Amino acid sequence: MLDPLSPLLEKERRTGVAVGTLHGVGLGPGDPELMTIRAVRMIRSSPVIAYFAKAGRRGNARAIVDPWVKEGTEELPLLYPVTTEIHFAETAYVSALAGFYEESALRIAEKLDAGQDVALICEGDPMFYGSFMHLFERLKGRYQVSITAGVSGMSGCFAAAGRPMTWGDDVLTVLPGTLDGESLARRLAATDAAVIMKLGKNLPKVRAALTAAGLIDRAIYVERGTMAGECVIPLALKADDEAPYFSMVLVPGEGRRP
Amino acid sequence: MLDPLSPLLEKERRTGVAVGTLHGVGLGPGDPELMTIRAVRMIRSSPVIAYFAKAGRRGNARAIVDPWVKEGTEELPLLYPVTTEIHFAETAYVSALAGFYEESALRIAEKLDAGQDVALICEGDPMFYGSFMHLFERLKGRYQVSITAGVSGMSGCFAAAGRPMTWGDDVLTVLPGTLDGESLARRLAATDAAVIMKLGKNLPKVRAALTAAGLIDRAIYVERGTMAGECVIPLALKADDEAPYFSMVLVPGEGRRP
Repeated sequence: MLDPLSPLLEKERRTGVAVGTLHGVGLGPGDPELMTIRAVRMIRSSPVIAYFAKAGRRGNARAIVDPWVKEGTEELPLLYPVTTEIHFAETAYVSALAGFYEESALRIAEKLDAGQDVALICEGDPMFYGSFMHLFERLKGRYQVSITAGVSGMSGCFAAAGRPMTWGDDVLTVLPGTLDGESLARRLAATDAAVIMKLGKNLPKVRAALTAAGLIDRAIYVERGTMAGECVIPLALKADDEAPYFSMVLVPGEGRRP
Repeated sequence: MLDPLSPLLEKERRTGVAVGTLHGVGLGPGDPELMTIRAVRMIRSSPVIAYFAKAGRRGNARAIVDPWVKEGTEELPLLYPVTTEIHFAETAYVSALAGFYEESALRIAEKLDAGQDVALICEGDPMFYGSFMHLFERLKGRYQVSITAGVSGMSGCFAAAGRPMTWGDDVLTVLPGTLDGESLARRLAATDAAVIMKLGKNLPKVRAALTAAGLIDRAIYVERGTMAGECVIPLALKADDEAPYFSMVLVPGEGRRP
Protein backbone atom coordinates (compact mmCIF):
# COMPACT_ATOMS: atom_id res chain seq x y z
CA MET A 1 0.00 0.00 0.00
CA LEU A 2 1.21 3.47 -0.85
CA ASP A 3 -0.44 5.12 2.16
CA PRO A 4 1.66 5.54 5.29
CA LEU A 5 0.32 3.88 8.41
CA SER A 6 1.30 6.65 10.82
CA PRO A 7 -2.26 7.94 11.50
CA LEU A 8 -3.21 4.36 12.32
CA LEU A 9 -0.39 3.93 14.82
CA GLU A 10 -1.38 7.27 16.36
CA LYS A 11 -4.93 5.96 16.84
CA GLU A 12 -3.63 2.80 18.53
CA ARG A 13 -1.52 4.88 20.88
CA ARG A 14 -4.56 6.96 21.85
CA THR A 15 -6.99 4.12 22.44
CA GLY A 16 -4.70 1.35 23.58
CA VAL A 17 -6.63 -1.09 21.33
CA ALA A 18 -4.95 -2.66 18.29
CA VAL A 19 -7.01 -1.42 15.34
CA GLY A 20 -8.40 -4.09 12.99
CA THR A 21 -7.47 -4.55 9.33
CA LEU A 22 -9.91 -4.21 6.44
CA HIS A 23 -9.53 -7.12 4.00
CA GLY A 24 -10.96 -6.47 0.54
CA VAL A 25 -11.63 -9.98 -0.75
CA GLY A 26 -12.46 -10.80 -4.38
CA LEU A 27 -14.56 -13.97 -4.69
CA GLY A 28 -14.30 -14.57 -8.44
CA PRO A 29 -17.01 -14.80 -11.10
CA GLY A 30 -19.57 -16.94 -9.27
CA ASP A 31 -18.45 -20.59 -9.13
CA PRO A 32 -17.40 -21.04 -5.47
CA GLU A 33 -14.52 -23.26 -6.68
CA LEU A 34 -13.07 -20.18 -8.40
CA MET A 35 -12.39 -18.54 -5.05
CA THR A 36 -8.68 -18.32 -4.28
CA ILE A 37 -7.03 -20.09 -1.37
CA ARG A 38 -6.24 -16.67 0.08
CA ALA A 39 -9.89 -15.58 -0.11
CA VAL A 40 -10.89 -18.66 1.90
CA ARG A 41 -8.21 -17.91 4.48
CA MET A 42 -9.35 -14.29 4.81
CA ILE A 43 -12.97 -15.29 5.34
CA ARG A 44 -12.13 -17.95 7.90
CA SER A 45 -9.73 -15.75 9.87
CA SER A 46 -11.91 -12.60 10.03
CA PRO A 47 -14.38 -12.31 12.93
CA VAL A 48 -16.63 -10.08 10.79
CA ILE A 49 -17.67 -10.46 7.14
CA ALA A 50 -19.36 -7.55 5.35
CA TYR A 51 -21.08 -7.68 1.96
CA PHE A 52 -23.25 -5.61 -0.33
CA ALA A 53 -26.73 -6.84 -1.23
CA LYS A 54 -30.02 -5.53 -2.48
CA ALA A 55 -32.58 -5.05 0.34
CA GLY A 56 -34.59 -8.23 0.79
CA ARG A 57 -31.95 -10.40 -0.91
CA ARG A 58 -29.05 -12.33 0.49
CA GLY A 59 -26.77 -11.19 -2.30
CA ASN A 60 -24.52 -13.17 -4.60
CA ALA A 61 -21.28 -12.53 -2.70
CA ARG A 62 -22.74 -14.00 0.48
CA ALA A 63 -24.03 -17.02 -1.46
CA ILE A 64 -20.60 -17.73 -2.96
CA VAL A 65 -18.81 -17.88 0.41
CA ASP A 66 -21.50 -19.92 2.14
CA PRO A 67 -19.54 -23.19 2.42
CA TRP A 68 -16.64 -21.35 4.07
CA VAL A 69 -18.27 -19.17 6.75
CA LYS A 70 -17.36 -20.41 10.23
CA GLU A 71 -19.97 -20.62 12.96
CA GLY A 72 -19.79 -17.52 15.15
CA THR A 73 -18.71 -15.19 12.34
CA GLU A 74 -20.47 -11.85 12.66
CA GLU A 75 -22.22 -10.73 9.46
CA LEU A 76 -22.60 -7.12 8.35
CA PRO A 77 -24.94 -6.91 5.34
CA LEU A 78 -24.74 -3.53 3.59
CA LEU A 79 -28.09 -3.06 1.86
CA TYR A 80 -28.28 -0.76 -1.18
CA PRO A 81 -30.99 1.89 -0.84
CA VAL A 82 -31.40 1.90 -4.66
CA THR A 83 -30.02 -0.15 -7.54
CA THR A 84 -31.65 0.41 -10.92
CA GLU A 85 -34.92 2.13 -9.84
CA ILE A 86 -33.32 5.57 -10.34
CA HIS A 87 -31.02 6.31 -13.31
CA PHE A 88 -27.37 6.54 -12.23
CA ALA A 89 -26.96 10.04 -13.73
CA GLU A 90 -29.70 11.55 -11.54
CA THR A 91 -28.75 13.62 -8.51
CA ALA A 92 -31.05 11.58 -6.28
CA TYR A 93 -29.15 8.38 -7.19
CA VAL A 94 -25.75 9.91 -6.56
CA SER A 95 -26.74 11.41 -3.21
CA ALA A 96 -28.53 8.24 -2.04
CA LEU A 97 -25.48 6.15 -2.87
CA ALA A 98 -22.99 8.62 -1.39
CA GLY A 99 -24.91 8.54 1.90
CA PHE A 100 -25.09 4.77 1.80
CA TYR A 101 -21.33 4.41 1.24
CA GLU A 102 -20.61 6.88 4.06
CA GLU A 103 -22.83 4.99 6.45
CA SER A 104 -21.38 1.62 5.38
CA ALA A 105 -17.84 2.94 5.91
CA LEU A 106 -18.84 4.07 9.43
CA ARG A 107 -20.30 0.66 10.27
CA ILE A 108 -17.08 -1.04 9.19
CA ALA A 109 -14.92 1.56 10.96
CA GLU A 110 -16.71 0.78 14.23
CA LYS A 111 -15.64 -2.86 14.01
CA LEU A 112 -12.07 -1.92 13.06
CA ASP A 113 -11.85 0.54 15.94
CA ALA A 114 -12.94 -2.24 18.29
CA GLY A 115 -9.93 -4.24 17.10
CA GLN A 116 -11.81 -6.62 14.82
CA ASP A 117 -10.62 -7.48 11.31
CA VAL A 118 -13.37 -7.14 8.69
CA ALA A 119 -13.45 -9.12 5.42
CA LEU A 120 -15.44 -7.08 2.89
CA ILE A 121 -16.27 -9.67 0.25
CA CYS A 122 -17.19 -8.89 -3.33
CA GLU A 123 -17.78 -10.70 -6.61
CA GLY A 124 -15.06 -10.71 -9.23
CA ASP A 125 -11.94 -8.64 -8.66
CA PRO A 126 -12.24 -5.93 -5.97
CA MET A 127 -10.32 -3.22 -7.89
CA PHE A 128 -12.18 -3.65 -11.20
CA TYR A 129 -15.59 -1.88 -11.26
CA GLY A 130 -16.14 -3.12 -7.68
CA SER A 131 -18.39 -1.59 -4.99
CA PHE A 132 -15.56 -2.37 -2.60
CA MET A 133 -13.61 0.57 -4.07
CA HIS A 134 -16.10 3.10 -2.69
CA LEU A 135 -15.43 1.95 0.88
CA PHE A 136 -11.72 1.51 0.21
CA GLU A 137 -11.45 5.19 -0.79
CA ARG A 138 -13.23 6.23 2.43
CA LEU A 139 -11.21 4.02 4.80
CA LYS A 140 -7.75 3.56 3.29
CA GLY A 141 -6.04 6.53 4.94
CA ARG A 142 -7.25 5.63 8.40
CA TYR A 143 -6.96 1.86 8.54
CA GLN A 144 -4.64 -0.86 7.35
CA VAL A 145 -6.14 -2.46 4.22
CA SER A 146 -5.22 -5.70 2.42
CA ILE A 147 -6.48 -6.55 -1.05
CA THR A 148 -7.06 -10.12 -2.26
CA ALA A 149 -7.28 -10.10 -6.06
CA GLY A 150 -10.00 -12.30 -7.55
CA VAL A 151 -10.81 -13.95 -10.86
CA SER A 152 -12.71 -11.20 -12.72
CA GLY A 153 -16.19 -11.77 -14.08
CA MET A 154 -14.78 -11.36 -17.58
CA SER A 155 -12.14 -14.06 -17.09
CA GLY A 156 -14.95 -16.35 -15.94
CA CYS A 157 -16.81 -15.57 -19.16
CA PHE A 158 -13.73 -16.24 -21.33
CA ALA A 159 -13.59 -19.73 -19.80
CA ALA A 160 -17.34 -20.27 -20.08
CA ALA A 161 -17.22 -19.33 -23.78
CA GLY A 162 -14.12 -21.48 -24.35
CA ARG A 163 -12.68 -18.69 -26.47
CA PRO A 164 -9.13 -17.28 -26.34
CA MET A 165 -9.58 -13.50 -26.09
CA THR A 166 -6.25 -11.81 -26.87
CA TRP A 167 -3.34 -12.94 -29.03
CA GLY A 168 0.11 -11.37 -29.48
CA ASP A 169 -0.33 -7.62 -29.97
CA ASP A 170 -4.12 -7.56 -29.65
CA VAL A 171 -5.54 -4.51 -27.90
CA LEU A 172 -8.43 -5.31 -25.54
CA THR A 173 -11.03 -2.64 -24.79
CA VAL A 174 -13.43 -3.06 -21.86
CA LEU A 175 -16.57 -1.01 -22.43
CA PRO A 176 -19.53 -0.32 -20.13
CA GLY A 177 -22.78 -0.74 -22.10
CA THR A 178 -23.92 2.50 -20.46
CA LEU A 179 -21.85 4.55 -22.97
CA ASP A 180 -23.78 6.21 -25.80
CA GLY A 181 -24.19 4.21 -29.02
CA GLU A 182 -21.96 6.39 -31.18
CA SER A 183 -19.11 6.18 -28.67
CA LEU A 184 -19.53 2.40 -28.35
CA ALA A 185 -19.43 1.90 -32.13
CA ARG A 186 -16.36 4.13 -32.57
CA ARG A 187 -14.42 2.38 -29.81
CA LEU A 188 -15.44 -1.09 -31.04
CA ALA A 189 -14.27 -0.27 -34.56
CA ALA A 190 -10.85 0.77 -33.20
CA THR A 191 -10.04 -2.29 -31.07
CA ASP A 192 -8.89 -5.88 -31.73
CA ALA A 193 -10.85 -7.50 -28.89
CA ALA A 194 -13.64 -6.20 -26.68
CA VAL A 195 -15.62 -6.98 -23.56
CA ILE A 196 -18.92 -5.14 -23.06
CA MET A 197 -20.22 -5.15 -19.49
CA LYS A 198 -23.27 -3.57 -17.82
CA LEU A 199 -25.70 -4.77 -20.47
CA GLY A 200 -29.19 -4.77 -18.91
CA LYS A 201 -31.40 -2.38 -20.83
CA ASN A 202 -28.45 -1.38 -23.00
CA LEU A 203 -28.42 -4.59 -25.08
CA PRO A 204 -30.30 -3.20 -28.14
CA LYS A 205 -27.88 -0.23 -28.24
CA VAL A 206 -24.88 -2.58 -27.85
CA ARG A 207 -26.19 -4.77 -30.66
CA ALA A 208 -26.56 -1.74 -32.96
CA ALA A 209 -23.03 -0.53 -32.10
CA LEU A 210 -21.56 -3.98 -32.85
CA THR A 211 -23.40 -4.04 -36.19
CA ALA A 212 -22.16 -0.53 -37.05
CA ALA A 213 -18.59 -1.62 -36.23
CA GLY A 214 -18.91 -4.74 -38.41
CA LEU A 215 -18.45 -7.04 -35.40
CA ILE A 216 -21.91 -8.50 -34.82
CA ASP A 217 -20.91 -11.90 -36.26
CA ARG A 218 -17.91 -12.18 -33.94
CA ALA A 219 -19.85 -11.24 -30.78
CA ILE A 220 -20.62 -13.88 -28.15
CA TYR A 221 -23.24 -13.37 -25.46
CA VAL A 222 -22.43 -14.96 -22.06
CA GLU A 223 -24.99 -15.06 -19.27
CA ARG A 224 -24.14 -16.30 -15.75
CA GLY A 225 -20.64 -17.41 -16.78
CA THR A 226 -19.30 -20.19 -14.44
CA MET A 227 -22.64 -20.21 -12.52
CA ALA A 228 -25.75 -22.41 -12.53
CA GLY A 229 -27.84 -21.47 -15.56
CA GLU A 230 -24.77 -20.51 -17.63
CA CYS A 231 -25.65 -19.67 -21.22
CA VAL A 232 -23.27 -19.00 -24.14
CA ILE A 233 -24.55 -18.14 -27.63
CA PRO A 234 -23.50 -16.08 -30.61
CA LEU A 235 -25.15 -12.69 -30.04
CA ALA A 236 -26.52 -12.75 -33.60
CA LEU A 237 -28.56 -15.85 -32.64
CA LYS A 238 -29.98 -14.42 -29.41
CA ALA A 239 -33.63 -13.76 -30.20
CA ASP A 240 -34.60 -11.44 -27.32
CA ASP A 241 -33.02 -8.39 -25.70
CA GLU A 242 -33.16 -9.67 -22.10
CA ALA A 243 -29.80 -9.35 -20.34
CA PRO A 244 -29.57 -9.81 -16.55
CA TYR A 245 -26.88 -8.30 -14.32
CA PHE A 246 -24.55 -11.28 -14.78
CA SER A 247 -24.15 -11.04 -18.53
CA MET A 248 -21.61 -9.62 -20.95
CA VAL A 249 -20.66 -9.63 -24.61
CA LEU A 250 -17.24 -10.83 -25.78
CA VAL A 251 -15.56 -10.04 -29.10
CA PRO A 252 -12.49 -12.32 -29.17
CA GLY A 253 -9.33 -11.00 -30.83
CA GLU A 254 -7.90 -12.60 -33.94
CA GLY A 255 -4.29 -11.41 -33.70
CA ARG A 256 -0.87 -12.82 -34.47
CA ARG A 257 -0.39 -16.47 -33.62
CA PRO A 258 2.34 -18.86 -34.76
CA MET B 1 -17.52 -25.74 -24.95
CA LEU B 2 -18.98 -24.95 -28.33
CA ASP B 3 -17.25 -27.85 -30.11
CA PRO B 4 -19.19 -31.10 -30.49
CA LEU B 5 -17.60 -34.14 -28.94
CA SER B 6 -18.57 -36.59 -31.67
CA PRO B 7 -15.06 -37.06 -33.15
CA LEU B 8 -13.90 -37.84 -29.64
CA LEU B 9 -16.53 -40.52 -29.10
CA GLU B 10 -15.61 -41.98 -32.48
CA LYS B 11 -11.98 -42.24 -31.34
CA GLU B 12 -13.02 -44.01 -28.13
CA ARG B 13 -15.09 -46.49 -30.15
CA ARG B 14 -12.10 -47.26 -32.38
CA THR B 15 -9.52 -47.72 -29.64
CA GLY B 16 -11.63 -48.99 -26.78
CA VAL B 17 -9.72 -46.64 -24.44
CA ALA B 18 -11.48 -43.68 -22.80
CA VAL B 19 -9.66 -40.62 -24.10
CA GLY B 20 -8.29 -38.19 -21.47
CA THR B 21 -9.38 -34.59 -20.94
CA LEU B 22 -7.13 -31.57 -21.36
CA HIS B 23 -7.48 -29.19 -18.41
CA GLY B 24 -6.27 -25.64 -19.10
CA VAL B 25 -5.50 -24.35 -15.61
CA GLY B 26 -4.82 -20.69 -14.79
CA LEU B 27 -2.56 -20.29 -11.75
CA GLY B 28 -2.98 -16.58 -11.07
CA PRO B 29 -0.42 -13.77 -10.96
CA GLY B 30 2.35 -15.47 -8.98
CA ASP B 31 1.44 -15.71 -5.28
CA PRO B 32 0.61 -19.44 -4.81
CA GLU B 33 -2.22 -18.40 -2.45
CA LEU B 34 -3.92 -16.72 -5.41
CA MET B 35 -4.50 -20.11 -7.04
CA THR B 36 -8.17 -21.07 -7.08
CA ILE B 37 -9.58 -24.08 -5.27
CA ARG B 38 -10.47 -25.54 -8.65
CA ALA B 39 -6.89 -25.14 -9.93
CA VAL B 40 -5.62 -27.12 -6.94
CA ARG B 41 -8.21 -29.84 -7.58
CA MET B 42 -7.23 -30.07 -11.25
CA ILE B 43 -3.54 -30.41 -10.45
CA ARG B 44 -4.12 -33.04 -7.78
CA SER B 45 -6.51 -35.10 -9.88
CA SER B 46 -4.50 -35.13 -13.13
CA PRO B 47 -1.90 -37.88 -13.59
CA VAL B 48 0.11 -35.60 -15.91
CA ILE B 49 0.97 -31.91 -15.55
CA ALA B 50 2.41 -30.00 -18.51
CA TYR B 51 3.96 -26.53 -18.43
CA PHE B 52 5.89 -24.10 -20.58
CA ALA B 53 9.38 -23.02 -19.53
CA LYS B 54 12.52 -21.57 -20.99
CA ALA B 55 15.20 -24.24 -21.64
CA GLY B 56 17.39 -24.63 -18.57
CA ARG B 57 14.78 -23.09 -16.26
CA ARG B 58 12.06 -24.69 -14.19
CA GLY B 59 9.59 -21.98 -15.18
CA ASN B 60 7.34 -19.83 -13.06
CA ALA B 61 4.17 -21.90 -13.55
CA ARG B 62 5.87 -25.03 -12.19
CA ALA B 63 7.21 -23.04 -9.23
CA ILE B 64 3.75 -21.74 -8.31
CA VAL B 65 2.15 -25.21 -8.11
CA ASP B 66 5.04 -26.81 -6.24
CA PRO B 67 3.25 -27.21 -2.87
CA TRP B 68 0.36 -29.02 -4.59
CA VAL B 69 2.01 -31.57 -6.87
CA LYS B 70 1.35 -35.11 -5.63
CA GLU B 71 4.10 -37.69 -5.59
CA GLY B 72 3.89 -39.86 -8.71
CA THR B 73 2.54 -37.09 -10.94
CA GLU B 74 4.13 -37.28 -14.37
CA GLU B 75 5.65 -33.99 -15.55
CA LEU B 76 5.77 -32.83 -19.15
CA PRO B 77 7.93 -29.69 -19.45
CA LEU B 78 7.46 -27.90 -22.78
CA LEU B 79 10.69 -26.00 -23.41
CA TYR B 80 10.59 -22.92 -25.66
CA PRO B 81 13.18 -23.09 -28.46
CA VAL B 82 13.39 -19.25 -28.44
CA THR B 83 11.97 -16.47 -26.26
CA THR B 84 13.37 -12.99 -26.88
CA GLU B 85 16.59 -13.87 -28.78
CA ILE B 86 14.77 -13.41 -32.13
CA HIS B 87 12.30 -10.56 -32.70
CA PHE B 88 8.70 -11.83 -32.77
CA ALA B 89 8.02 -10.32 -36.21
CA GLU B 90 10.79 -12.36 -37.88
CA THR B 91 9.89 -15.41 -39.95
CA ALA B 92 12.42 -17.54 -38.06
CA TYR B 93 10.65 -16.76 -34.77
CA VAL B 94 7.21 -17.58 -36.11
CA SER B 95 8.30 -20.85 -37.69
CA ALA B 96 10.33 -21.95 -34.67
CA LEU B 97 7.35 -21.32 -32.39
CA ALA B 98 4.82 -22.90 -34.75
CA GLY B 99 6.92 -26.09 -34.84
CA PHE B 100 7.28 -26.02 -31.06
CA TYR B 101 3.53 -25.68 -30.50
CA GLU B 102 2.82 -28.50 -32.97
CA GLU B 103 5.27 -30.80 -31.23
CA SER B 104 3.94 -29.84 -27.78
CA ALA B 105 0.38 -30.56 -28.92
CA LEU B 106 1.50 -33.99 -30.14
CA ARG B 107 3.19 -34.79 -26.82
CA ILE B 108 0.00 -33.90 -24.94
CA ALA B 109 -2.20 -35.75 -27.45
CA GLU B 110 -0.20 -38.94 -26.80
CA LYS B 111 -1.08 -38.80 -23.11
CA LEU B 112 -4.73 -38.04 -23.84
CA ASP B 113 -4.93 -40.92 -26.33
CA ALA B 114 -3.56 -43.22 -23.64
CA GLY B 115 -6.52 -42.22 -21.48
CA GLN B 116 -4.65 -39.85 -19.16
CA ASP B 117 -5.98 -36.42 -18.20
CA VAL B 118 -3.41 -33.66 -18.65
CA ALA B 119 -3.39 -30.41 -16.65
CA LEU B 120 -1.66 -27.76 -18.75
CA ILE B 121 -0.83 -25.10 -16.18
CA CYS B 122 -0.14 -21.46 -16.97
CA GLU B 123 0.37 -18.18 -15.15
CA GLY B 124 -2.49 -15.71 -14.96
CA ASP B 125 -5.68 -16.43 -16.86
CA PRO B 126 -5.39 -19.07 -19.62
CA MET B 127 -7.54 -17.22 -22.21
CA PHE B 128 -5.85 -13.82 -21.81
CA TYR B 129 -2.55 -13.56 -23.77
CA GLY B 130 -1.73 -17.12 -22.63
CA SER B 131 0.57 -19.66 -24.27
CA PHE B 132 -2.08 -22.22 -23.40
CA MET B 133 -4.25 -20.82 -26.20
CA HIS B 134 -1.83 -22.04 -28.87
CA LEU B 135 -2.24 -25.64 -27.73
CA PHE B 136 -5.96 -25.19 -27.10
CA GLU B 137 -6.46 -24.17 -30.74
CA ARG B 138 -4.58 -27.28 -31.91
CA LEU B 139 -6.34 -29.78 -29.63
CA LYS B 140 -9.86 -28.47 -28.96
CA GLY B 141 -11.61 -30.17 -31.87
CA ARG B 142 -10.20 -33.59 -31.08
CA TYR B 143 -10.28 -33.77 -27.30
CA GLN B 144 -12.51 -32.73 -24.44
CA VAL B 145 -11.10 -29.55 -22.88
CA SER B 146 -11.95 -27.83 -19.59
CA ILE B 147 -10.82 -24.30 -18.76
CA THR B 148 -10.12 -23.09 -15.22
CA ALA B 149 -10.11 -19.29 -15.20
CA GLY B 150 -7.36 -17.67 -13.12
CA VAL B 151 -6.64 -14.33 -11.48
CA SER B 152 -4.99 -12.35 -14.30
CA GLY B 153 -1.56 -10.80 -13.90
CA MET B 154 -3.17 -7.39 -14.21
CA SER B 155 -5.64 -8.05 -11.36
CA GLY B 156 -2.64 -9.06 -9.25
CA CYS B 157 -1.00 -5.74 -10.08
CA PHE B 158 -4.16 -3.74 -9.22
CA ALA B 159 -4.03 -5.33 -5.75
CA ALA B 160 -0.27 -4.83 -5.41
CA ALA B 161 -0.63 -1.15 -6.30
CA GLY B 162 -3.64 -0.78 -3.97
CA ARG B 163 -5.34 1.30 -6.64
CA PRO B 164 -8.95 1.00 -7.86
CA MET B 165 -8.70 0.81 -11.66
CA THR B 166 -12.14 1.42 -13.16
CA TRP B 167 -15.11 3.43 -11.85
CA GLY B 168 -18.64 3.72 -13.22
CA ASP B 169 -18.44 4.26 -16.99
CA ASP B 170 -14.64 4.14 -17.26
CA VAL B 171 -13.31 2.49 -20.41
CA LEU B 172 -10.25 0.29 -19.79
CA THR B 173 -7.77 -0.30 -22.60
CA VAL B 174 -5.21 -3.11 -22.35
CA LEU B 175 -2.21 -2.33 -24.56
CA PRO B 176 0.83 -4.46 -25.42
CA GLY B 177 3.98 -2.34 -25.14
CA THR B 178 5.04 -3.86 -28.47
CA LEU B 179 2.74 -1.44 -30.38
CA ASP B 180 4.41 1.51 -32.11
CA GLY B 181 4.76 4.71 -30.08
CA GLU B 182 2.31 6.77 -32.12
CA SER B 183 -0.40 4.12 -31.78
CA LEU B 184 0.25 3.78 -28.03
CA ALA B 185 -0.03 7.54 -27.49
CA ARG B 186 -3.22 7.83 -29.53
CA ARG B 187 -4.93 4.95 -27.72
CA LEU B 188 -3.79 6.19 -24.31
CA ALA B 189 -5.20 9.67 -25.02
CA ALA B 190 -8.58 8.13 -25.89
CA THR B 191 -9.11 5.92 -22.80
CA ASP B 192 -10.10 6.48 -19.16
CA ALA B 193 -7.91 3.74 -17.68
CA ALA B 194 -5.08 1.69 -19.16
CA VAL B 195 -2.90 -1.33 -18.53
CA ILE B 196 0.32 -1.62 -20.54
CA MET B 197 1.80 -5.12 -20.66
CA LYS B 198 4.87 -6.60 -22.42
CA LEU B 199 7.21 -3.83 -21.32
CA GLY B 200 10.78 -5.19 -21.50
CA LYS B 201 12.76 -3.14 -24.01
CA ASN B 202 9.63 -1.11 -24.81
CA LEU B 203 9.66 0.91 -21.59
CA PRO B 204 11.29 4.10 -23.02
CA LYS B 205 8.71 4.09 -25.85
CA VAL B 206 5.87 3.52 -23.35
CA ARG B 207 7.15 6.38 -21.19
CA ALA B 208 7.23 8.72 -24.20
CA ALA B 209 3.69 7.69 -25.25
CA LEU B 210 2.36 8.32 -21.72
CA THR B 211 4.02 11.74 -21.70
CA ALA B 212 2.56 12.58 -25.13
CA ALA B 213 -0.90 11.56 -23.87
CA GLY B 214 -0.54 13.72 -20.75
CA LEU B 215 -0.71 10.66 -18.46
CA ILE B 216 2.84 10.25 -17.21
CA ASP B 217 1.97 11.60 -13.74
CA ARG B 218 -0.89 9.12 -13.32
CA ALA B 219 1.17 6.08 -14.41
CA ILE B 220 2.22 3.46 -11.85
CA TYR B 221 4.95 0.93 -12.53
CA VAL B 222 4.41 -2.52 -10.95
CA GLU B 223 7.11 -5.18 -11.01
CA ARG B 224 6.53 -8.76 -9.78
CA GLY B 225 3.03 -7.92 -8.46
CA THR B 226 1.98 -10.37 -5.66
CA MET B 227 5.41 -12.09 -5.83
CA ALA B 228 8.63 -11.94 -3.81
CA GLY B 229 10.49 -8.78 -4.81
CA GLU B 230 7.28 -6.88 -5.59
CA CYS B 231 7.92 -3.23 -6.41
CA VAL B 232 5.35 -0.45 -6.93
CA ILE B 233 6.42 3.10 -7.81
CA PRO B 234 5.07 6.06 -9.77
CA LEU B 235 6.56 5.61 -13.25
CA ALA B 236 7.75 9.24 -13.22
CA LEU B 237 10.00 8.37 -10.25
CA LYS B 238 11.49 5.23 -11.79
CA ALA B 239 15.08 6.22 -12.62
CA ASP B 240 16.05 3.43 -15.04
CA ASP B 241 14.41 1.74 -18.01
CA GLU B 242 14.82 -1.84 -16.80
CA ALA B 243 11.54 -3.79 -16.95
CA PRO B 244 11.57 -7.59 -16.52
CA TYR B 245 8.91 -9.95 -17.92
CA PHE B 246 6.73 -9.64 -14.81
CA SER B 247 6.10 -5.92 -14.99
CA MET B 248 3.37 -3.64 -16.24
CA VAL B 249 2.22 -0.02 -16.15
CA LEU B 250 -1.19 0.95 -14.75
CA VAL B 251 -3.08 4.17 -15.40
CA PRO B 252 -6.03 4.07 -12.95
CA GLY B 253 -9.34 5.55 -14.08
CA GLU B 254 -10.83 8.59 -12.37
CA GLY B 255 -14.49 8.16 -13.38
CA ARG B 256 -17.84 8.77 -11.78
CA ARG B 257 -18.08 7.83 -8.10
CA PRO B 258 -20.72 8.82 -5.56
